Amino acid sequence: KTELHPDGAIFARGSADDKGQFFMQIKAFEAMMKTNSLPCNIKFIFEGEEEVGSVSLGDFVNEFKEKLSCDCILISDTHIYSNEQPTVTTGLRGLSYVEVEVEGPNRDLHSGLYGGAVPNPIHVLSRMIAKLIDEDGQITIDGFYDNVEDVSDEERAEMNKLKDNPEEFKKSIGLNGVEGEAGYTTLERTSIRPTLDCNGIWGGYTGEGAKTVIPSKASAKISMRLVPYQTPEEITEKFTKYFEKIAPDNVRVKVTPHHGGLPYVLPTDTKEYLAAKQAMETAFGKEVLPYRGGGSIPITSMFEQVLGAKSVLMGFGLDSDAIHSPNEHYGLFNFYKGIESIPLFFENYSK
Amino acid sequence: KTELHPDGAIFARGSADDKGQFFMQIKAFEAMMKTNSLPCNIKFIFEGEEEVGSVSLGDFVNEFKEKLSCDCILISDTHIYSNEQPTVTTGLRGLSYVEVEVEGPNRDLHSGLYGGAVPNPIHVLSRMIAKLIDEDGQITIDGFYDNVEDVSDEERAEMNKLKDNPEEFKKSIGLNGVEGEAGYTTLERTSIRPTLDCNGIWGGYTGEGAKTVIPSKASAKISMRLVPYQTPEEITEKFTKYFEKIAPDNVRVKVTPHHGGLPYVLPTDTKEYLAAKQAMETAFGKEVLPYRGGGSIPITSMFEQVLGAKSVLMGFGLDSDAIHSPNEHYGLFNFYKGIESIPLFFENYSK
Repeated sequence: KTELHPDGAIFARGSADDKGQFFMQIKAFEAMMKTNSLPCNIKFIFEGEEEVGSVSLGDFVNEFKEKLSCDCILISDTHIYSNEQPTVTTGLRGLSYVEVEVEGPNRDLHSGLYGGAVPNPIHVLSRMIAKLIDEDGQITIDGFYDNVEDVSDEERAEMNKLKDNPEEFKKSIGLNGVEGEAGYTTLERTSIRPTLDCNGIWGGYTGEGAKTVIPSKASAKISMRLVPYQTPEEITEKFTKYFEKIAPDNVRVKVTPHHGGLPYVLPTDTKEYLAAKQAMETAFGKEVLPYRGGGSIPITSMFEQVLGAKSVLMGFGLDSDAIHSPNEHYGLFNFYKGIESIPLFFENYSK
Repeated sequence: KTELHPDGAIFARGSADDKGQFFMQIKAFEAMMKTNSLPCNIKFIFEGEEEVGSVSLGDFVNEFKEKLSCDCILISDTHIYSNEQPTVTTGLRGLSYVEVEVEGPNRDLHSGLYGGAVPNPIHVLSRMIAKLIDEDGQITIDGFYDNVEDVSDEERAEMNKLKDNPEEFKKSIGLNGVEGEAGYTTLERTSIRPTLDCNGIWGGYTGEGAKTVIPSKASAKISMRLVPYQTPEEITEKFTKYFEKIAPDNVRVKVTPHHGGLPYVLPTDTKEYLAAKQAMETAFGKEVLPYRGGGSIPITSMFEQVLGAKSVLMGFGLDSDAIHSPNEHYGLFNFYKGIESIPLFFENYSK
């Protein structure tokens, strides 16, 4: 039992992400078979590589396109906003991940003999990173926002019905203050807006004590979370052009793309969304709201492109379930609500 | 033999820095003894710890103050500008070295779930580093230049007689362009002006491939080269205050001082400088110019403070001798010019 799970919880690696959610699907199927209430055909895919990038699933989907053909896809690999405020995840962000390098002098230099007279790659990289986001939290890359989905005021209002508790949010991560793009709430900043983050930086002497070196190179890893209708190819290209543009003439810069992924969104006026919303409203006895997640599950876009089917992201975990961490757990309440909701989804969707 | 040393050179670890220069002092002394031409008393100090910070010499000087009392100190641990343009080193820069840390969230965060809504320590640190130097290459720390020696136009003109060959300088370190404080030459930027360099930076994920983390912390090592009459204590304090001042409210910053050292300067109107200049002019048959070095030998300031004696930095190496590197060497021409110059220095100084 935990504070958030008074009915008890299953503590186990993968309990919430997502062997417990997978078992919930099986139990719902078992129940429908026993009561002879399954209203449609179901095909199962058990994916065991999601945490390492679903490297085989892409090939599999392309190869067995016919066999996998379907009307819609139900995935339980996300969480709800809270047990008091159930949600259906209606979006995931895409990703463009790049590594950058700034090279100044052709070797590490003595900062006494050269300091003050040559471009220092750490300073140059710092100035360039500082330039990527302006004072309003807007990303400055030319054309970065060109294809960003214009989310309607209605959808934004709906989304912001979710309790946005800034004090709780700040406390949970030990901050005095949050920040981000002007004109958007924290919920919007982490869901319907694209972002740019430096995930790593290194250069020069990083050991104990002091060494007076001007390094030849400094590097950083930079990722951008994308929203509909941005594509990783487009954004990686725009980033590269801009980064090269803002580089001073006296250094060389290199941009190396890592991987990317398309964003995914399930519109709230689709049959798929409405079937899930109504199923969960019946099971929870509460209004269900749409919720855009900030992370990425690249396979959802691929399902849509190859199979022409929308994915419904109906997961029942909580943000606080400590996935990927010690003491991962999955609440029994959530497990049972899932088993109740899944048959209702099939019922609604088959009508 | 090398291009710069047609008479031959001694290739050995420490040949130029500075066992060869030390041996040169012994040979000069031997010659003066043989010809009975030593015009004054000499005390020798053999310092074997200079490369690891002279940790014992400071205590030694304090303890044996009486025994070490002298009129002036002659050190051969520097280089001349070139064999065509001999120089006496008249200054060394001091140092203030600090480590800084910016802490944002209390743990590493998932950049999908939190990206766009929290301060990213790498971005914050990058912006702060970018702010330390303005577009004119001036250090922005409040009061940083308050005590900086105002070098006279005469001395600057004298110093700039040294051939400042920017093409050669750039080529030697593989740069298309140099930079630095507006209004000063490369020679001045690396000698009579204080500087600030980031010697190392690290934070977040720095391994192979991609990891989408917003790190809790990012750190950097920053050193400042000082000129008369700046002190490491003063500059470290000013840096700390300024760094804390420019930190945004939503992060915590920490400044940890490492070590420091006082700058040293030998004025060109002193008896010590003139004795060295004339000695070398006789030996080389050429005009000798003053030369301010960019590096640091902290013991020279200590000698002045404890013993009340000026140090004459009469070293005969070349910048190209590859000290601390493979193939370190010391030209025979330089070795012999040293042996010629040293007795002449004693002769001039004793007059």
